[in-house]
Amino acid sequence: MTAVPTASITGLDVLDVRFPTSEHLDGSDAMNPEPDYSAAYVILRTDAPDGLQGHALAFTTGRGNDVQAAAIAALAPYVVGREVHDICSDLGGFARALTHDPQLRWLGPEKGVIHMATGAVVNAAWDLAAKRAGLPVWRFLSQMSPEELVSQVDFRWLGDALTPQDALELLRRAEPGRPERMARLIETGYPAYTTTPGWLGYSDEKLTRLAREAVADGFTQIKLKVGASLEDDIRRMRAARAAVGPDVRIAVDANQRWDVAPAIEWMRALAPDEPYWIEEPTSPDDILGHAAVRAGVQPIKVATGEHVANRVIFKQLLQAGAVDIVQIDAARVGGVNENIAILLLAAKFGVPVCPHAGGVGLCEMVQHLAMFDYVAVSGTLEDRVIEYVDHLHEHFADPVRLRDGRYQAPARPGLSAQMLPRALKEYAYPDGPVWSSRV
Amino acid sequence: MTAVPTASITGLDVLDVRFPTSEHLDGSDAMNPEPDYSAAYVILRTDAPDGLQGHALAFTTGRGNDVQAAAIAALAPYVVGREVHDICSDLGGFARALTHDPQLRWLGPEKGVIHMATGAVVNAAWDLAAKRAGLPVWRFLSQMSPEELVSQVDFRWLGDALTPQDALELLRRAEPGRPERMARLIETGYPAYTTTPGWLGYSDEKLTRLAREAVADGFTQIKLKVGASLEDDIRRMRAARAAVGPDVRIAVDANQRWDVAPAIEWMRALAPDEPYWIEEPTSPDDILGHAAVRAGVQPIKVATGEHVANRVIFKQLLQAGAVDIVQIDAARVGGVNENIAILLLAAKFGVPVCPHAGGVGLCEMVQHLAMFDYVAVSGTLEDRVIEYVDHLHEHFADPVRLRDGRYQAPARPGLSAQMLPRALKEYAYPDGPVWSSRV
Repeated sequence: MTAVPTASITGLDVLDVRFPTSEHLDGSDAMNPEPDYSAAYVILRTDAPDGLQGHALAFTTGRGNDVQAAAIAALAPYVVGREVHDICSDLGGFARALTHDPQLRWLGPEKGVIHMATGAVVNAAWDLAAKRAGLPVWRFLSQMSPEELVSQVDFRWLGDALTPQDALELLRRAEPGRPERMARLIETGYPAYTTTPGWLGYSDEKLTRLAREAVADGFTQIKLKVGASLEDDIRRMRAARAAVGPDVRIAVDANQRWDVAPAIEWMRALAPDEPYWIEEPTSPDDILGHAAVRAGVQPIKVATGEHVANRVIFKQLLQAGAVDIVQIDAARVGGVNENIAILLLAAKFGVPVCPHAGGVGLCEMVQHLAMFDYVAVSGTLEDRVIEYVDHLHEHFADPVRLRDGRYQAPARPGLSAQMLPRALKEYAYPDGPVWSSRV
Repeated sequence: MTAVPTASITGLDVLDVRFPTSEHLDGSDAMNPEPDYSAAYVILRTDAPDGLQGHALAFTTGRGNDVQAAAIAALAPYVVGREVHDICSDLGGFARALTHDPQLRWLGPEKGVIHMATGAVVNAAWDLAAKRAGLPVWRFLSQMSPEELVSQVDFRWLGDALTPQDALELLRRAEPGRPERMARLIETGYPAYTTTPGWLGYSDEKLTRLAREAVADGFTQIKLKVGASLEDDIRRMRAARAAVGPDVRIAVDANQRWDVAPAIEWMRALAPDEPYWIEEPTSPDDILGHAAVRAGVQPIKVATGEHVANRVIFKQLLQAGAVDIVQIDAARVGGVNENIAILLLAAKFGVPVCPHAGGVGLCEMVQHLAMFDYVAVSGTLEDRVIEYVDHLHEHFADPVRLRDGRYQAPARPGLSAQMLPRALKEYAYPDGPVWSSRV
């Protein structure tokens, strides 16, 4: 028997970090006119001699980041004092224990602030586990056996759509091609699309210029925010189509702005310029509404997910045929574990996953999940793209690397969510230098 | 022009109040084995000469009550400093402004901790407004015109099921009978059912004794918690049926414990003793799952709602024919305003509303909504019962009054959520005397 060196979690630090992005209307859309992109940032500290820490974050848009931070802090008693080895060798059990605490679950269950807090802590544990294994999370996941991967998933409430046996079969089917796909990823990366040209606060000139630049940079898809004014959207859509030509896909994103009937009308009005998908046409909770929108706007595809609270809503979006594209988010649901469940559900229903990203660190984290999906779950890149937004990457220790419109596979161990100490200090809210002069 | 005396909101106080109910297994069920019933309690203070305050609360089951309190505190800047008259004369606008803050809504949207916080503050404003009008909330609502009531509702995302015009027609149809129904309510009260006999932690002897007492007290329906052990549930259901006889309805409540197939199997096993409804058979987010369970357990009815996050999920439960009974909760959604929307949706679909209650102050608050529903929305008591649990009422200034198994109509102004100053002090967490000796 090998002696496992004991080490335990000695601290769970939470930091309130905010960027004053509202000052430039970066990130502006029909429902988020002036976001200050923010992170409720978590650090798991240990007394292991390797000195490794687990870093992750929940993303918010400003006010309320303190509430999110308080929720993460409330999870400290479930983590601090536990053996690092116990957590890292049973991340599935760790995630389930946090999710199913019978008192805390009242605050959700499995949705909103408390679930995002769980997700942040679970993701920090994955960061720590992957660092200890010396692997980026996408590779850490991609070297797990189908059985190990199935053990990560909480199948509660999924039984009518996905059983452990279903999951095992899906994962086994994808097993033989793993090495080639890993090699291909490392060589050529994972396709991206860019939202940079399309923020609602940008002028037509800026939109046109940025759309052209995106095509020149190798992107084959861009995205426009829509939903504030139909007249403006028709004009912006036309300008974007003129800028990128007929072969580049243009997705549009309403950020939940509409009811069902207006969503259908609006999209029919944009149809002549061939939008590729309509994202978040209505409430993220409205499964039947999305199904009705999808039926009404075909062949335009329907996408949603960045605000979908958990695997149960994703399950139904798939069961109801309500979406053409599943948009996972690294920081909305209960962490890597629940996202594995969602990737498996999407694979079961044959629906492509095109992750939501942007914000703070969402690109950094979610690329790992998409790459794992390609290697070990869906096994394909067809119609798959990860969102890319060119904000705030400079604050990360292992920022995403884009080349020719593709995410390059991360090589450094962990989940890539770790921010630079300088950024954590400068943008600390409300006492960091960036804010103390403003607040 | 009448001069309106100006008064403003001068403070929003938040208190963390917890009761050590886990020590006696009161409130124990399949998902909540040891709850400490708690309130994140809010007080709106004003500088009006009448000295009136607005009191309300969000209910939680212990851990996490501090997170809920932090979320309520985060809403203070939206309330403190505002004119009392402006808020009380436009409670619909007030609720919409809180709900749609573009940064805070990221934390939901309209679900979980942030939405319950909104609900608590909105309910406190209703308490204040009704006190200023000198009316209990059920009467305050019942004297509003159909147009005023429609103005309380946020119709966003409801358009495919309920329009303002639909709502107006429903409310106008119920207008003529309002005075008789108010008189009848004041005379005979609103029917209740009791969950007191059926907590999962109780012995069969205690269950039998309490079930008999419930019948003797005039209740025509009781409820049993189920879902931990099928064998035990079959035995407990049989004991309960033997205790109450064939004519008293026995509802059962699984508190989300099952997936779809086990829910159907379990309920078929209990069917010989004729359960009236199965409550929360599965995830509160699972509309399609509830529809499948309902199809599989007929004629047993399906009920849900205490954890349904918002009107959009209720809308779909009704659209999908997934429930026979809508269980509103006073403290889960965005306050009185969103509950008006849910009552209107239920009336539109012809589904009875049987409110969830218990916890801390939930009976006190929700009775107002059920009584308003009877007077001005559905216009009927048929198959309607409000849950009653005999816990913690002694801590309220205007506790519910039960007589012959019926809630007596509250007569004192406000929402009845105000707790006694002594209780707020004694059960303050963690520094009140009840906790300082325990923690």
